[in-house]
Amino acid sequence: MMVHLSKKQLLEAESFFRRDFVNSLAGYKSLNLIGTKNENGVTNLSPFSQIFHVGATPPVVGILFRPHTVERHTFENILNTGYFTLNHVTPVFYKEAHQTAARYEGSEFEATGLEEEYLNGFFAPFVKLSPLKVACKLAERVTLKINGTELLLADIEDVFVEEKGLRKDGSLDLNELETVTNTGLDEYHIGQRLARLSYPKPGKPLEEIL
Amino acid sequence: MMVHLSKKQLLEAESFFRRDFVNSLAGYKSLNLIGTKNENGVTNLSPFSQIFHVGATPPVVGILFRPHTVERHTFENILNTGYFTLNHVTPVFYKEAHQTAARYEGSEFEATGLEEEYLNGFFAPFVKLSPLKVACKLAERVTLKINGTELLLADIEDVFVEEKGLRKDGSLDLNELETVTNTGLDEYHIGQRLARLSYPKPGKPLEEIL
Repeated sequence: MMVHLSKKQLLEAESFFRRDFVNSLAGYKSLNLIGTKNENGVTNLSPFSQIFHVGATPPVVGILFRPHTVERHTFENILNTGYFTLNHVTPVFYKEAHQTAARYEGSEFEATGLEEEYLNGFFAPFVKLSPLKVACKLAERVTLKINGTELLLADIEDVFVEEKGLRKDGSLDLNELETVTNTGLDEYHIGQRLARLSYPKPGKPLEEIL
Repeated sequence: MMVHLSKKQLLEAESFFRRDFVNSLAGYKSLNLIGTKNENGVTNLSPFSQIFHVGATPPVVGILFRPHTVERHTFENILNTGYFTLNHVTPVFYKEAHQTAARYEGSEFEATGLEEEYLNGFFAPFVKLSPLKVACKLAERVTLKINGTELLLADIEDVFVEEKGLRKDGSLDLNELETVTNTGLDEYHIGQRLARLSYPKPGKPLEEIL
């Protein structure tokens, strides 16, 4: 049984319903904790899930931020300092990761007990427990006309990944790293592999890559 | 044991290694089949995973496309007609979904046996087997300076979702819908819920939403 919801019905629905519903439509999301530090040395940590691959040569990542209408520490720290980190979340600390979204006055690292660490002299803090950490440097800012959403594009400067999750061909085993993915506003999942599939060509049967 | 890869090492690595590695860094991705139709009535179906929530009021979705240097049917059909559909993939047809990425001359619906359907008079074709289908209308195009990647923003016009996956609060149960997520270039997974968590506030313990 299929339910049909039109744009008109969505716009007339309660705002909590519309927010949850529309946020879930694209599917599973790329959850990361973003670590930043302001000019006074105060660190910040916050969960984001609108993060996506933009290019490999050079390595570039993109992140969407809500319109810049109120104070947003992560966004402002990135604009002011140019640096941030991405940190995958695991089942061991996904509740602390969720809790970093609360409105704290000081550092979310201290407030939630997640330990920060500094690697390779990079300015912004990483999450010590994270199995995959990426050092990023701001490269381009685009404000989307449609609704004021802010898109930041960043160069990937360094990656730190637990050895068990890195395969010889360069692909990452996110099941092995226990990377958490999220849906909607508040729901967390781990992934369970179906298969890796061979490169698709017309007339050629697919094979599973083992 | 953490492995460190610098930007320099990535740029000097084999291109297949760099492509797989960088593509996997953000985490699990939002896999959808995009359905389009050209001005001559030829349909097209192709898998995309750089798809993300942009806003709920009005409902807007964003999709990244590789730089427009060679013929790309999906991208051109959207630019020329203004319409496309997003279709979640399930374990029942994820191999056919992967196979639609092969370079076919005609329609990928015919080539892979995935049945197309038309709903509510919408111009572009949906995937009949999909448990969550979204009708989209092109709203804005942004070419990213950093590497020529194309960002399309689209208004969500209609949503069709299997009733079992829609909760009363508007959130979607993607485990129940059996939505597939992907990582890297060729790897497919289903999600397994850890929990839904209550709204985070300083000093307030999180609760699981059941």
